Amino acid sequence: MTEPVVYLRGEFVPSSQARLPIYDAGIVLGATVTEMTRTFGGRLFRLEEHLARLYRSLKYVRFEIGLSREELAGISQRLVEHNLRLVPPGAELGLIHFVTAGEYATYAGGAAAVRASPTACVHTFPLPFALWARKMAEGVHLITPSVRHVPPQCYDPKMKYRSRMHFYLADQEARQADPEAMALLLDLEGNVTETSGANFLLYSGGTLVSPSRRNILPGVSRATTIELAASLGIPFAERDVQVFDCLNADEAFLTSTPYCMLPVTRINGVPIGDGRPGPLFHRLMDAWSGLVGLDVRAQVLTGGTV
Amino acid sequence: MTEPVVYLRGEFVPSSQARLPIYDAGIVLGATVTEMTRTFGGRLFRLEEHLARLYRSLKYVRFEIGLSREELAGISQRLVEHNLRLVPPGAELGLIHFVTAGEYATYAGGAAAVRASPTACVHTFPLPFALWARKMAEGVHLITPSVRHVPPQCYDPKMKYRSRMHFYLADQEARQADPEAMALLLDLEGNVTETSGANFLLYSGGTLVSPSRRNILPGVSRATTIELAASLGIPFAERDVQVFDCLNADEAFLTSTPYCMLPVTRINGVPIGDGRPGPLFHRLMDAWSGLVGLDVRAQVLTGGTV
Amino acid sequence: MTEPVVYLRGEFVPSSQARLPIYDAGIVLGATVTEMTRTFGGRLFRLEEHLARLYRSLKYVRFEIGLSREELAGISQRLVEHNLRLVPPGAELGLIHFVTAGEYATYAGGAAAVRASPTACVHTFPLPFALWARKMAEGVHLITPSVRHVPPQCYDPKMKYRSRMHFYLADQEARQADPEAMALLLDLEGNVTETSGANFLLYSGGTLVSPSRRNILPGVSRATTIELAASLGIPFAERDVQVFDCLNADEAFLTSTPYCMLPVTRINGVPIGDGRPGPLFHRLMDAWSGLVGLDVRAQVLTGGTV
Amino acid sequence: MTEPVVYLRGEFVPSSQARLPIYDAGIVLGATVTEMTRTFGGRLFRLEEHLARLYRSLKYVRFEIGLSREELAGISQRLVEHNLRLVPPGAELGLIHFVTAGEYATYAGGAAAVRASPTACVHTFPLPFALWARKMAEGVHLITPSVRHVPPQCYDPKMKYRSRMHFYLADQEARQADPEAMALLLDLEGNVTETSGANFLLYSGGTLVSPSRRNILPGVSRATTIELAASLGIPFAERDVQVFDCLNADEAFLTSTPYCMLPVTRINGVPIGDGRPGPLFHRLMDAWSGLVGLDVRAQVLTGGTV
Amino acid sequence: MTEPVVYLRGEFVPSSQARLPIYDAGIVLGATVTEMTRTFGGRLFRLEEHLARLYRSLKYVRFEIGLSREELAGISQRLVEHNLRLVPPGAELGLIHFVTAGEYATYAGGAAAVRASPTACVHTFPLPFALWARKMAEGVHLITPSVRHVPPQCYDPKMKYRSRMHFYLADQEARQADPEAMALLLDLEGNVTETSGANFLLYSGGTLVSPSRRNILPGVSRATTIELAASLGIPFAERDVQVFDCLNADEAFLTSTPYCMLPVTRINGVPIGDGRPGPLFHRLMDAWSGLVGLDVRAQVLTGGTV
Amino acid sequence: MTEPVVYLRGEFVPSSQARLPIYDAGIVLGATVTEMTRTFGGRLFRLEEHLARLYRSLKYVRFEIGLSREELAGISQRLVEHNLRLVPPGAELGLIHFVTAGEYATYAGGAAAVRASPTACVHTFPLPFALWARKMAEGVHLITPSVRHVPPQCYDPKMKYRSRMHFYLADQEARQADPEAMALLLDLEGNVTETSGANFLLYSGGTLVSPSRRNILPGVSRATTIELAASLGIPFAERDVQVFDCLNADEAFLTSTPYCMLPVTRINGVPIGDGRPGPLFHRLMDAWSGLVGLDVRAQVLTGGTV
Repeated sequence: MTEPVVYLRGEFVPSSQARLPIYDAGIVLGATVTEMTRTFGGRLFRLEEHLARLYRSLKYVRFEIGLSREELAGISQRLVEHNLRLVPPGAELGLIHFVTAGEYATYAGGAAAVRASPTACVHTFPLPFALWARKMAEGVHLITPSVRHVPPQCYDPKMKYRSRMHFYLADQEARQADPEAMALLLDLEGNVTETSGANFLLYSGGTLVSPSRRNILPGVSRATTIELAASLGIPFAERDVQVFDCLNADEAFLTSTPYCMLPVTRINGVPIGDGRPGPLFHRLMDAWSGLVGLDVRAQVLTGGTV
Repeated sequence: MTEPVVYLRGEFVPSSQARLPIYDAGIVLGATVTEMTRTFGGRLFRLEEHLARLYRSLKYVRFEIGLSREELAGISQRLVEHNLRLVPPGAELGLIHFVTAGEYATYAGGAAAVRASPTACVHTFPLPFALWARKMAEGVHLITPSVRHVPPQCYDPKMKYRSRMHFYLADQEARQADPEAMALLLDLEGNVTETSGANFLLYSGGTLVSPSRRNILPGVSRATTIELAASLGIPFAERDVQVFDCLNADEAFLTSTPYCMLPVTRINGVPIGDGRPGPLFHRLMDAWSGLVGLDVRAQVLTGGTV
Repeated sequence: MTEPVVYLRGEFVPSSQARLPIYDAGIVLGATVTEMTRTFGGRLFRLEEHLARLYRSLKYVRFEIGLSREELAGISQRLVEHNLRLVPPGAELGLIHFVTAGEYATYAGGAAAVRASPTACVHTFPLPFALWARKMAEGVHLITPSVRHVPPQCYDPKMKYRSRMHFYLADQEARQADPEAMALLLDLEGNVTETSGANFLLYSGGTLVSPSRRNILPGVSRATTIELAASLGIPFAERDVQVFDCLNADEAFLTSTPYCMLPVTRINGVPIGDGRPGPLFHRLMDAWSGLVGLDVRAQVLTGGTV
Repeated sequence: MTEPVVYLRGEFVPSSQARLPIYDAGIVLGATVTEMTRTFGGRLFRLEEHLARLYRSLKYVRFEIGLSREELAGISQRLVEHNLRLVPPGAELGLIHFVTAGEYATYAGGAAAVRASPTACVHTFPLPFALWARKMAEGVHLITPSVRHVPPQCYDPKMKYRSRMHFYLADQEARQADPEAMALLLDLEGNVTETSGANFLLYSGGTLVSPSRRNILPGVSRATTIELAASLGIPFAERDVQVFDCLNADEAFLTSTPYCMLPVTRINGVPIGDGRPGPLFHRLMDAWSGLVGLDVRAQVLTGGTV
Repeated sequence: MTEPVVYLRGEFVPSSQARLPIYDAGIVLGATVTEMTRTFGGRLFRLEEHLARLYRSLKYVRFEIGLSREELAGISQRLVEHNLRLVPPGAELGLIHFVTAGEYATYAGGAAAVRASPTACVHTFPLPFALWARKMAEGVHLITPSVRHVPPQCYDPKMKYRSRMHFYLADQEARQADPEAMALLLDLEGNVTETSGANFLLYSGGTLVSPSRRNILPGVSRATTIELAASLGIPFAERDVQVFDCLNADEAFLTSTPYCMLPVTRINGVPIGDGRPGPLFHRLMDAWSGLVGLDVRAQVLTGGTV
Repeated sequence: MTEPVVYLRGEFVPSSQARLPIYDAGIVLGATVTEMTRTFGGRLFRLEEHLARLYRSLKYVRFEIGLSREELAGISQRLVEHNLRLVPPGAELGLIHFVTAGEYATYAGGAAAVRASPTACVHTFPLPFALWARKMAEGVHLITPSVRHVPPQCYDPKMKYRSRMHFYLADQEARQADPEAMALLLDLEGNVTETSGANFLLYSGGTLVSPSRRNILPGVSRATTIELAASLGIPFAERDVQVFDCLNADEAFLTSTPYCMLPVTRINGVPIGDGRPGPLFHRLMDAWSGLVGLDVRAQVLTGGTV
């Protein structure tokens, strides 16, 4: 097949046919859990941890997908193997798992036999490094919008989900202040949480600090960064963090699967440290590169085309 | 065409082809606004009000759909006209509008030209009255789950949206207590709000009472019910309502587009009034029937097949 | 005297000498209550209402100022009479009352006999209409910042006070998005409150609506506007209002002493109505002009120099 | 000069001339950040840490004061050197830095060229030990008022600021119950925070415990006390603390610049421990005395006049 | 019988034998609902309304007491008839209904046959008017304590219950400030609610105002007072009320069964109006006296012994 | 005496006479603090710790009981010694201490000399192991109800109290979903707290985790379990825990005096781990058995009759 393959509801289909009927609950309710894994040098990084998190999300929402973790890992590997052949050398793949609540009977009417079991899908896409190159080089500008993060008593951020309207609205607000900015959402008490697509970490007084786990996705890249920091002798703490702490941090970072880390150089227009990517950022990115066996920062800066 | 027609991104397609690519933001982010209108005797009821609400939602999320309200009304009428011919006599149509944030560039990769403009879709389905027949006859059992409604500072319930994970989780909790029950969500302060698909009203001390508008969709059926109550001389009040008030109400109701009203006869296992559909319910349903020109209660009870 | 006169701690002094020692509690604690009144055609407007509010504030903070409301009115009139002579024809005066908690003993040391009784001051300034001319013509852009309004259980917004750090921070955030914008603060639950210097009103569905009084200063211009609206047959309601309501209002306004009303034409970048000052705004400003005997809109637009 | 010198807006002036015009934002808005440092034996204690905190506050409020930390340290030293000569032997100085948002254009009118840049001021005062002597000997009575601390999403307590209306109201409430009492403010969730002028610490089960940093000024005396406790082998923990914990603590303390520490012997009328300054208090005060080279407890008890 | 009679678990017993085993849930859990009614001139006032409220409470907690409202009314009348003979002329009776969750099996062990059905009890006591005489004459002093009212999402104040620990703690705090004071509890948002034994009303700007019903017992004396005010042409409003409003009210009142109304003349030490019972208080008490056929104020002042 | 003895208000009485007058504050207000201790092999376990907690509770509510901790210990031992003789071999006693606020003057009328001092009572009961046998064998099902735990700013859960209406309501809700289920209450922010009679612990990623102490009784069995876990090399952490964490834990437990520990095998219908008591549960119960010198699990399973 000359097209990427997508796994959808038990079948492998060409990506151009990977479509959901408009009565799928993923469209009707946004009741979907998801994961994103990526390759480094064509090999999936920490797939087991992403799948473990996916199964925690599935347990929370009570979707029975009828696939073991091993089966899903096998499907994932098969997809990557096939689809990697279709991208240029040096490119990397993002691998998406998502599972919706199944087809929504009311809207499906009598037109089709409704498949009420969850809709599981796995697909890949070439990582568009160009999206993050400038942010990698110069740093990210974060804005705290008036829109607040959804609290865990509504639905829990420790699950990776797709009912993301608040993220969408928050990013719109952020872009009002700066078209390049991303939103750093606060919780209902004004504590810093995360962005719509990344964990937030700050470095202050020699300690790497994360917002409390109550309000955030326990990111795999975040965990990796904390491990790498520990290997550099840098202690880690998790606690409630406010905007004041962020503005006065020595450095701040985003961590996320596609780019590992980005430096945060401004928050609400105020420069963090001297307003440029800091020394710890570079040390951590070097450690990342060592771990995954390629220069992750260069990869983003050059768009993966060495 | 012997299939129902769907309007999707500027085209009319047969319903079997009405599918979204898996990188549409409606699937990736749940960033979707929507409406549901229905026919009575084949004629759309209060379409203008539904479209007005849709455009308020669009303004809130800042989707530019490139269609005037009149154009969208025209598309809607055309769909109903066509699709009604395909259903048995006596059947009615539900008409869905939904608009997503468009295609999500990151996942679409280079495989397709991404259409970043919002994805607008209009489709219909025959109202499955059988789903509500028993509830119409005997009443609904509502359960207040531990999951809370998303507060307006995250995203506003006055918009009809599809980031509905909390509704999904809440209904799961409710069904644990009674497989037939629906969730009546509380807000973060413990005030009663709405169900995942209907407004909640109670009748107490001679007044029809609604939860505060802060926490609810301003339903078209709710507004109609309030108007009909007024025509019967029954005053209306909007205020914060707690579970105590609900348990001690004389009657309680759900209002929603497909069934107009359902009687609520139990909440958390406690009978409301004498535990049966009450006299005001019947008077209001009679008034509804008068307004729309057919016996709406009988239609639900008989499945629309007279 | 060729300088404006200021009343300060029982004396009338030239404005160049109206200074507070750095150990006054007004500087040390920000524990200050205040009022602003203005003239129309040189006559103070609703001074009694402003003084009544000042005495409510004083009662709340328990300052004993040793001046009756009548005495303070007399001082106010005397100041205006004197100072008005020093401004060009057509200019108007703003009249400020403020009362601090007195001199702060700890910092005053032995250097001076501390005056622990409250520091009362009355002063005037020519209204700088030029500051508001463009906003009057084109409308105000409001931004909802992430900073929230101080809740009444900390200190009550119904008092006009000078512990205004949150207003200062909120306006900074707003100006990040648009240097001309003002902040529209939300309360801790996400309800709309007021700006740092004005009340906010919206007009929707034929009703003039204000945020709940819990979170706002009960403004004199706001009360006047509500009265004028009533005289035009427009009903008024007070309730919790969210951003959704504001974006979808037909019109929105600020009311404040110096300019009576300003039209709000954008909120978070979204145009209100058609994005221009609306018909009700013009009708209300006409009514204001009738009430105070001069064209208030023209006065602001021309800078008061006819 | 026979008067103490004050640094004000770039100049050194005699203290009797250290006054702010009534249109300074420090008076109009209470938008002021501040620090207090003190001397021990005539030498400033931890000035660098106070200045570091001041610059964190300045960054948070975005005041550009046009002075480096070194320049401000130099000014501070010069003031102390000069002013110390004017106080009796044995006296100590408190050193105040404060910075306001500058002059407030609207009220300044055309009378003066407005200086919009921040107003920076440095001044000293002899520490009035007599104010604290009885509390040092017998202990402080704390009262938890109904007024709550301002939450960080309004403005952050980690900044030392002068919008202190809530502190003023809280202390009034406390003094109602006992004219000698101080307020121990709770946050919006009922956690203990701090007093209007000091940090609160408790000693329980062998551990020194502080309220969470979310709600408090990170006090320099607090940090010193924690260090001294560590040198005595006493571990430290930071967590949410409630009134229950305080009433049942073995000992409790206030820490603040002018007096280092005060024992807390009653809270809401309930004796802490046996209602008298406890053994740890005395050990810590001895450690303080060792650190700063004089008997700090005796200094307060005798009014600094040995 | 020369002793008052008590109804307890289906029997009439002399009051000296009206005791509960220590394993009754009323003692073990405080899971008890209750009512208090009183006589005027020996006749029970609005017993039906009290019983209606009791049955609303019972429905909320789901106690099945096996007695109809009519039966319970009969028992109540019988008790009053009997017990009234035992008190001096001019005395009045308070009538208490309470129902506990029944006997608590775990603690009862094998020693007794546990009666798991609810424990219903009705008893009377002579109203001790002397307790309220001074407050009637001079007015009540209310203090807002730091302890907050239990929110309705824990248990609803619209039920009259006996899990009253917060009331107990709040009154202790109030008495610290003034041994004669009562606590006026705030809710979690700082709104005024009620005292431990009475509803709170204020009179301001010509309107009788009550805190929102969300946070209060819907008192029978409160309802009567509102009716009497209406008969005097005084409008009534229900809304969120803060301390600021109370301090600045023209008058304030408590309403409660035993004394009908008491004037509130101080709150947190601040006089309400001129600090004495006001004219509306006297007019309303006159109206009360007219309604019940005796001078209720005099009765309290003289201790019921004419 | 052939009846168990009860200590009540200074006297030892047979249990059949251990009754409170209906005007005791324990009945009228639910203002009661309490403790439960138990025997193992007839010897009281950690009585000192239970009494220490009781005296912390007494200090918080300010009851002066006029008994030293030693005196109360002596009374407790005497009761156990006597009452143990009346139970079959192998049975164990629960020992209850409770103290109410004393007799409530208003309701006592002139009928009796009121004893305003606190009512202290100590009693025992044979532990009804049969109540917990099935839960010990198969595990407990926990349900998170919509009713929330009372927050510490109302009254503090660190005190063991008897104003337990919320617990009563919560358990009713839980039993609606499963007649055997217990309620696991959430706090107002949606964090997990405790059940009506036990602490909750979870085991996840090799760590024993407890909800934050802010919201829970610091249970003696909980502390013992944490100690035993430490002796097995299992670290312990205390933090805010949400439902997501519970559903995804490896194991979960209840700890409480009568049964030491119970395994939690389902929460909201979702199996914890594999849905059966897990290996750590068995190891901890073995450690408990070693500590107290008998097989505690067997004792519950067999009803204590070996």
